[in-house]
Amino acid sequence: MPEVYAARRERLRDRFSVGGSATALVSRPANVRYLAGAAPQDAVLLVGTDEDVLLCTGPPDDEFIDGRPDEAVRLQVVSGGDPALAGADLAAAQGADSLAVEEHHLTVARHRALAHVAPRLRLTGLGGAVEQLRLVKDEDEIALLRIGAEIVDQALSELLESILVGRTERHLALELERRLIDHGADGPAFTTSVGTGPNSGRPGHRPTDRRVEEGDFLSVCLGATYRGYRCEIGRTFVIGTSPADWQIELYDLVFAAQRAGRQALAPGAACRDVDRAARQVLDSAGYGGGLAPSTGHGVGLEIDEDPQLAPTAMGKLDACVPVTVEPGVHLPGRGGVRIDDTLVVRPEADGGPELLTITTKELLAL
Amino acid sequence: MPEVYAARRERLRDRFSVGGSATALVSRPANVRYLAGAAPQDAVLLVGTDEDVLLCTGPPDDEFIDGRPDEAVRLQVVSGGDPALAGADLAAAQGADSLAVEEHHLTVARHRALAHVAPRLRLTGLGGAVEQLRLVKDEDEIALLRIGAEIVDQALSELLESILVGRTERHLALELERRLIDHGADGPAFTTSVGTGPNSGRPGHRPTDRRVEEGDFLSVCLGATYRGYRCEIGRTFVIGTSPADWQIELYDLVFAAQRAGRQALAPGAACRDVDRAARQVLDSAGYGGGLAPSTGHGVGLEIDEDPQLAPTAMGKLDACVPVTVEPGVHLPGRGGVRIDDTLVVRPEADGGPELLTITTKELLAL
Repeated sequence: MPEVYAARRERLRDRFSVGGSATALVSRPANVRYLAGAAPQDAVLLVGTDEDVLLCTGPPDDEFIDGRPDEAVRLQVVSGGDPALAGADLAAAQGADSLAVEEHHLTVARHRALAHVAPRLRLTGLGGAVEQLRLVKDEDEIALLRIGAEIVDQALSELLESILVGRTERHLALELERRLIDHGADGPAFTTSVGTGPNSGRPGHRPTDRRVEEGDFLSVCLGATYRGYRCEIGRTFVIGTSPADWQIELYDLVFAAQRAGRQALAPGAACRDVDRAARQVLDSAGYGGGLAPSTGHGVGLEIDEDPQLAPTAMGKLDACVPVTVEPGVHLPGRGGVRIDDTLVVRPEADGGPELLTITTKELLAL
Repeated sequence: MPEVYAARRERLRDRFSVGGSATALVSRPANVRYLAGAAPQDAVLLVGTDEDVLLCTGPPDDEFIDGRPDEAVRLQVVSGGDPALAGADLAAAQGADSLAVEEHHLTVARHRALAHVAPRLRLTGLGGAVEQLRLVKDEDEIALLRIGAEIVDQALSELLESILVGRTERHLALELERRLIDHGADGPAFTTSVGTGPNSGRPGHRPTDRRVEEGDFLSVCLGATYRGYRCEIGRTFVIGTSPADWQIELYDLVFAAQRAGRQALAPGAACRDVDRAARQVLDSAGYGGGLAPSTGHGVGLEIDEDPQLAPTAMGKLDACVPVTVEPGVHLPGRGGVRIDDTLVVRPEADGGPELLTITTKELLAL
């Protein structure tokens, strides 16, 4: 659907005064992909005065979201050299007098080189303009996230049917990633995290050679990329026949926090209030000190994008914004619990938040 | 061996006038790791006036190259906020009057925030100072690359013993990555590339669902990370009993080019001459037009680092510089051949270039 990309570029022109003799150079890969339908390696997109040009160092054939380039974007292969510099050259040749760049993505050195290549162009800042456009998803984007969520649910459910005791975190993570691919994912959305025993519940834990033991908490966090869109799920299980009392207590607490966060999701809700809903459950049980700085974040073409659900976050949620809700507690030396879902903010009238990751959140003893 | 890191920081101070009231803030992850022994997420290293400080957003426990932090570096966890800003603050508090930053890594927006946070600090450029230090490896670093190369050789040899016809590129790539982990790698050094039939020999090809067929060329490029160090191998095979004439011809040609590149590796050889040695073999057979911009590159803490073996590359090789030599030819619609080794430049007296990846380069029919 190349029209989608053309419409997005129009919105960028309309809302951020790119047009006339003002041009923009988009360099952040997810932003390039959002606006052009493809982000081949090192690609930049010139949103120009008379045409839009995708400049890259190689052919983009297997990188297109829907398998087709946006025909309204001309493709220019720059062999040897920085496509951004070629883009600035081109903007100057189109008669532009300014070029807005992504200062939060371009390095100081590249920015200086741009100024050198096209000295007559005034370099301005595009800010997070494209990121803002990306916040609210259309139903086609949400459909891709939904498929990604089905894939992570399937991969996880198959793992749970296998024997876990004695296997290492690394092998479990690899097996999950293989199953993601088996079920049609482009690949994992991020490095799969599997934590056992004392490693369980640690945010961002990198799998080690520790083996699953009876009585362990086992926490898993994995994500799938499906046609560019990334979603995630996190669950915690107990290994063995019956969980210990402290495990049940901690699990119930994190579950209550995660539910409170989910229930706070609504169009118009302040991001910090969603965070607070989840955080205060853990806080009031005395776990406030060691918590992660956020309890959730947006997902889409990147696995961690705006909005942030954090105490200092600004802004409110809109309908059709997909986010994670993922509070957790980790007790050093003992382990912990994380529960993580991907949901889409929906109005009450449409049934409230849409849960994409539907694997049960009961405490399973495996 | 924490002393190694302290010695590296001393060399940085000596050679790039960091010292006195001049400080440096290193932000590129591989550079941080090189100088501090660890690069936890978002970490930056302040090479300061009275102490060196590693600033990061979380504990680095499982990220250390040799499992131990460099005790001469103080660790400071910055929760919420950019560690680089905290580093600039700290430099100012140490009484520094200048701070050299990595302008090829810091974004324009971060650079501006640094200037804002510590207005009395003069921000200067560190250039590629740390990258230059990283060029020549010590024997401990080379030993890690050698183990990585053994791992890729093993993973590849096991794959060749299995049945290949009918399996998809994606599955072969996943299986290779699993075997890397089985043999002790931290993980793949980059996304494993498996190309069959018309996809074979394409540089950077991303595995697809195409299945291996009789008569195909099959090209594989994979790398292992072992304790932070990355190396790679690439080989091309024929599927079936006997290769076609065009396949033998093309293979022999690429093999001759790759051998010429390998033989040109010597301390003092110009990088562009090594590239030319390989390239002219392909050029004179009429394949000059579609070749990749380089025929090899350095490896180490990153999979693609200096030196570049390319027509416009400056500089000469030194002893103990590990590089790849990886020419290839891809014929659109038909497929192609790539042969890729990791070697260490050594003087003639020490036996010439040391080949790390020892899988045979005979044309195997599988």
